[in-house]
Amino acid sequence: MDIPFNKPYLTGKELVYIEDAVKKGKISGNGYYTHLCHDFFERRYGFNKCLLTTSCTDALEMATLLIDIKEGDEVIMPSYTFVSTANAFVLRGATIIFADSRTDHPGIDEDHIEALITKKTKAIVPVHYAGVACDMDKIMALAAKYNLYVIEDAAQAIDSFYIGKDGVKRALGSIGHLAAFSFHETKNIISGEGGMLAINDTRFSERAEVIWEKGTNRSAFFRGEVDKYGWVDVGSSFLPSEIIAAFLWAQLENIVDIQQVRKSHWEYYNNKLQNWALENEIQLPILPSFATNNGHMFYIVCKSIEQRQSIIEKLKSKKILSVFHYISLHGSPFYKNSYIGRDLSESDRYSDRLLRLPMFYELDVQEIINAL
Amino acid sequence: MDIPFNKPYLTGKELVYIEDAVKKGKISGNGYYTHLCHDFFERRYGFNKCLLTTSCTDALEMATLLIDIKEGDEVIMPSYTFVSTANAFVLRGATIIFADSRTDHPGIDEDHIEALITKKTKAIVPVHYAGVACDMDKIMALAAKYNLYVIEDAAQAIDSFYIGKDGVKRALGSIGHLAAFSFHETKNIISGEGGMLAINDTRFSERAEVIWEKGTNRSAFFRGEVDKYGWVDVGSSFLPSEIIAAFLWAQLENIVDIQQVRKSHWEYYNNKLQNWALENEIQLPILPSFATNNGHMFYIVCKSIEQRQSIIEKLKSKKILSVFHYISLHGSPFYKNSYIGRDLSESDRYSDRLLRLPMFYELDVQEIINAL
Repeated sequence: MDIPFNKPYLTGKELVYIEDAVKKGKISGNGYYTHLCHDFFERRYGFNKCLLTTSCTDALEMATLLIDIKEGDEVIMPSYTFVSTANAFVLRGATIIFADSRTDHPGIDEDHIEALITKKTKAIVPVHYAGVACDMDKIMALAAKYNLYVIEDAAQAIDSFYIGKDGVKRALGSIGHLAAFSFHETKNIISGEGGMLAINDTRFSERAEVIWEKGTNRSAFFRGEVDKYGWVDVGSSFLPSEIIAAFLWAQLENIVDIQQVRKSHWEYYNNKLQNWALENEIQLPILPSFATNNGHMFYIVCKSIEQRQSIIEKLKSKKILSVFHYISLHGSPFYKNSYIGRDLSESDRYSDRLLRLPMFYELDVQEIINAL
Repeated sequence: MDIPFNKPYLTGKELVYIEDAVKKGKISGNGYYTHLCHDFFERRYGFNKCLLTTSCTDALEMATLLIDIKEGDEVIMPSYTFVSTANAFVLRGATIIFADSRTDHPGIDEDHIEALITKKTKAIVPVHYAGVACDMDKIMALAAKYNLYVIEDAAQAIDSFYIGKDGVKRALGSIGHLAAFSFHETKNIISGEGGMLAINDTRFSERAEVIWEKGTNRSAFFRGEVDKYGWVDVGSSFLPSEIIAAFLWAQLENIVDIQQVRKSHWEYYNNKLQNWALENEIQLPILPSFATNNGHMFYIVCKSIEQRQSIIEKLKSKKILSVFHYISLHGSPFYKNSYIGRDLSESDRYSDRLLRLPMFYELDVQEIINAL
């Protein structure tokens, strides 16, 4: 392909910082660059506490341990999402209650959540698809009413915001009790594989650190808060190497530039494709009024699966790679026999018809426009 | 400290390969360098199949999913080990049955395992402490007799071997059904944080790949074996970034040199400390006849906890850092109330008296000898 779907962008300092991490004599986790990244996120986005993880999947798994998900607990999430959103909870024995997507956007239909809540419901997991906010006022109100946890799947949602009914603009990932981010190479800010847990509910702060450090109180020990450290809880090795944190730090130093470029690509797509979309009965992204755009993804919703396939092939013939992704999880080989809810037609519609166009820093969007 | 306990060693090619990985346009997992590493391990050590992971902990967690550990299953392992050996199984609901260490070595006392086996026992987890083999003939015979799985915790055991009763020398990690390795910065071969699962029992090969790829059949899809990929199983994001794999590859290219240097450090310690050890009633490492040495760790066993403390302090006054580590898991804050077995006096003895001396590639061992 001449134009790939994604191309990891280097700011130029990644290898410098990796070399520096090695020179500092520490390349395992929880070192100098990890702390720089934590501080950056906490200050810039108002997260109470941040912990880098080896993936967004791992951040979600930390969240399931923190809210103590057990066999039989029910968790409500959209069906149109990545497998990890569900797997993290399935690993703890939860039953997944899949919700449909909005008609104007692939995010969870907030108005359908309440009907899915039972006495077994423990959490709602809104996924900010394409970095576009779910209606968090509605979701947090439901959580308060039914005493549920909200875990934001903010994998795609770095540097994006929700504007509440009170007019206040809050960073995605800072609203739910916990939130999971991804720095996978296809994201805006990358470290190859990588993620982060944002801990907004302070009740979880101390235990989050223990679970992150393999179930030990090692961090408290090194701060001098306990006189020896040992096995105090369940946990895993959720923390990434300083090599990964050093790479990520180089990206964060350039987040303003990266975001500006991606958002301008997105605007360019959106402006130039208006007529083409109208002529071909294709839906361009719709941003709800409470959501901002972080330039993560430019997608289109085709009028049919056949039209999508023909666009994929047309672009391929011009050596441009476009991709679709999620297949509704409620109809997946793994879960379809366990799914007993109603049809999720919007979710299936996005599964069949949503197409993602190339989006990366060094992209020349006009080349895609020309090809279309 | 003038002499740290550990210092990560760079072969010189790590940053070159990381840069190359970025240039290849792919820094997420399961790419060029990941495959190089897999092939290297499979060829060199005779593992049936290898999968890099983000940590040894994660490799152990993959193993628990593969052998389908469930609530109430019992798993036998030494108490003198790292918390992750146990946590990986606790996360799946297993009851941990702790065994004592050998009198001549911190590894599990193989002769005490059979008495711990019940109808609920599902696996034995021998830990090759300091890269020194457990008696795998005995352990595999028990596994065969009682139909159990053997998961080798080979975190410290890269490039070390077991010589069986048949005289054949087999790589540690190639004998049990599954084995977990660590590339944490304190190990011989490093990637900051990192690990690997070796899959020796071919029944697990296909599912291991699925679990590794977040419960999807993505790998089979890219090989053209299935026509679409989706959610087919539980799983997690176990695979490390290509950044980590590229770093690891630079280390593997130099494994012969690294091993030679570390083993010579070890021999130097062992030769030069004989008299001092005798005079101070200190036990130097004892290698069972069936085990090889991989130069991972040089430890001493003091005659008392007080003697250990005085040696730590003496070295510290000369700006040399020596460390102890495991505290018997059966007596940990997390597990002591659940532990109902007998006293594990050997395990407690190593907890109180074992001391690790500095060990890294660029170390001048004579400086430690002088200080002692």
